Amino acid sequence: MNEKTTSDLENLRGLIDGVDQQLLLLLRKRLDLVAQVGAVKHGAGLPIYAPQREAAMLAKRRDEAKKMDVSPQLIEDILRRLMRESYLNEKDVGFKQIKQDLGNVVIVGGEGKLGGLFSQMLVLSGYQVKTLDKNDWASAAQTFEGAGLVIVTVPISITCELIRDKLSSLPSHCILADLTSVKTEPVKAMLEAHSGPVVGLHPMFGPDVGSLAKQVVVVCHGRDSDKYQWLLEQIKIWGARLVEAEPEKHDKAMQLVQAMRHFSSFVYGLNLYKEEADIGSLLQFSSPIYRLELAMVGRLFAQSPELYADIIFAQKESMDAIGDYLDNYSHALSLLQAGDRDAFVAQFKEVAQWFGDFAPQFQRESRAMLQSVNDMKTD
Amino acid sequence: MNEKTTSDLENLRGLIDGVDQQLLLLLRKRLDLVAQVGAVKHGAGLPIYAPQREAAMLAKRRDEAKKMDVSPQLIEDILRRLMRESYLNEKDVGFKQIKQDLGNVVIVGGEGKLGGLFSQMLVLSGYQVKTLDKNDWASAAQTFEGAGLVIVTVPISITCELIRDKLSSLPSHCILADLTSVKTEPVKAMLEAHSGPVVGLHPMFGPDVGSLAKQVVVVCHGRDSDKYQWLLEQIKIWGARLVEAEPEKHDKAMQLVQAMRHFSSFVYGLNLYKEEADIGSLLQFSSPIYRLELAMVGRLFAQSPELYADIIFAQKESMDAIGDYLDNYSHALSLLQAGDRDAFVAQFKEVAQWFGDFAPQFQRESRAMLQSVNDMKTD
Repeated sequence: MNEKTTSDLENLRGLIDGVDQQLLLLLRKRLDLVAQVGAVKHGAGLPIYAPQREAAMLAKRRDEAKKMDVSPQLIEDILRRLMRESYLNEKDVGFKQIKQDLGNVVIVGGEGKLGGLFSQMLVLSGYQVKTLDKNDWASAAQTFEGAGLVIVTVPISITCELIRDKLSSLPSHCILADLTSVKTEPVKAMLEAHSGPVVGLHPMFGPDVGSLAKQVVVVCHGRDSDKYQWLLEQIKIWGARLVEAEPEKHDKAMQLVQAMRHFSSFVYGLNLYKEEADIGSLLQFSSPIYRLELAMVGRLFAQSPELYADIIFAQKESMDAIGDYLDNYSHALSLLQAGDRDAFVAQFKEVAQWFGDFAPQFQRESRAMLQSVNDMKTD
Repeated sequence: MNEKTTSDLENLRGLIDGVDQQLLLLLRKRLDLVAQVGAVKHGAGLPIYAPQREAAMLAKRRDEAKKMDVSPQLIEDILRRLMRESYLNEKDVGFKQIKQDLGNVVIVGGEGKLGGLFSQMLVLSGYQVKTLDKNDWASAAQTFEGAGLVIVTVPISITCELIRDKLSSLPSHCILADLTSVKTEPVKAMLEAHSGPVVGLHPMFGPDVGSLAKQVVVVCHGRDSDKYQWLLEQIKIWGARLVEAEPEKHDKAMQLVQAMRHFSSFVYGLNLYKEEADIGSLLQFSSPIYRLELAMVGRLFAQSPELYADIIFAQKESMDAIGDYLDNYSHALSLLQAGDRDAFVAQFKEVAQWFGDFAPQFQRESRAMLQSVNDMKTD
């Protein structure tokens, strides 16, 4: 590099430093303003996530960007990232308490991660929360005294038994809810054990989300839905989106969504291990798409084996779905072994046609994801 | 919502609008400054992607952010997104031409997407590019006249045959290169057909990347590497990272990285189709992680069946890897069928131990990805 180049670059980088300083100031200012919006919403009991308002704001910004020859997608991506930050910060303000005269909330399994998250959200909304864990059953009667809501969040394998054995004498006005990732059996067990209001919930996210904004919670109605309507409102205040479902339909979807997918990720990891793959060198060769897929497999193994065993073993029917996959794999492999490229292509086209408009939609979505993955690269 | 709330919110939103206007101005200014850096680099022939410089800049910004009580990760994410935009804009300036006296570049299969991308990059760097497609062979002799570089990028299934049949009488000083996603056979075919410089390249990305910044290109040396060193420099100028590999080692990795992964995504899609899954309702229930995985499967089916058939059928050895996966799947399923939860957990732990530090690393990485996916949600 000659002297002229060096000094030109230094000058320009100095100017960029200055712009970035201003950028930081603006970010701070914007976060503060949005926090004030949060405080106003908090006072009025409005949900922190307002999809239509957000879409309208983004559309406006995209238009303004175009006029300034800035890519509309750039400003949208930056604002979406900023909104995430603002959602995270909402927690500092707390949330409006919808039900003032509830009495205590008792979280059974409150020392678990998901129980901890719900406990935190409830406390931030002004509720009195007690937790009850496996060693606390001796004093359970005292804990349940005056409870207005009991939330069960224990390992799937013991959920129904615990509901039947331990929760059959709650006060009849008390709401009984659970957070289990299957719903048919737990909802049934709750309806049998308890004569008061019952609702099954399945939060479709891990306990490591920083905020509930935009996250989905599945709701399976049990009994006396008017009595727990406030709880659903409360969850919406936290920013989550509620999806109502019949327990059976939910569970059927989970066989494909959870059990099968987790199982095949598990086998993929197992396979890498058996093949004695060199992860470091695989990563070196990796395109963004493969890095992402490897990360999705690897993340499984950083988590609790028991949790995954629970999810996979929870439904007998999952085994059928997992078995069907094996049959399809086996059949597709036989095309390969026969060298039948034409049959493979024909099969591919058939599936592509079935995916219909979802295929190009997924391609667009995944392109954006892959670009983010590439942005994160450091070497 | 009462009047006070409405007017408070309107006031605050007006202020946020103002901040966003300033933000757009700053973004425009920063993009312009970085474009000037690009122009200086262009003049000096420096690569557009400078990992160390980037890391140092980000570290500095993170420190500054902390002092202003802005999350360091927020400014890092925003700057990374901005850098992506700047890389995309580099194309408008063009790139320094490393080899001035090359003569023509001929891209065999230049009407394909990847050929089109390389053609574009070469033209932006000042080279004369001719393309040769399947209907152009009658005039091939004329096209090859004065060629300094011939790049082969045709379907894998015909690559070696084409090299042997059509490229055995190139001028001896001419460089022969290919972009095939397997390397052993094509490099061998090139060495046999041509007496001059030979190099095998595998761009580890799809033709829809907007920029080559940070993308990986695998390099398999063939013959006379000093003669094509300039080409590697040229690719680095475009921002790509070069990874050198023996063709056999590369192909072995691709059996796991490409063939097997594509195959199992294919089977996953096939399985959804056979199970008559309702994608819309699966999406409704979907957590960010599942939405991402579904998108990765669905994107496959928006692409060319022939391309995937080519990749999967390219290496006989891929079939072994695919078959091993079936065996492992089958074995794991038998644990499930026997209800042997303990054995599943033990197996899980064994694999987790093998993943070692990669598992938590992947968990961190995937968390960032999942947050981006959640940011993109619109309802």
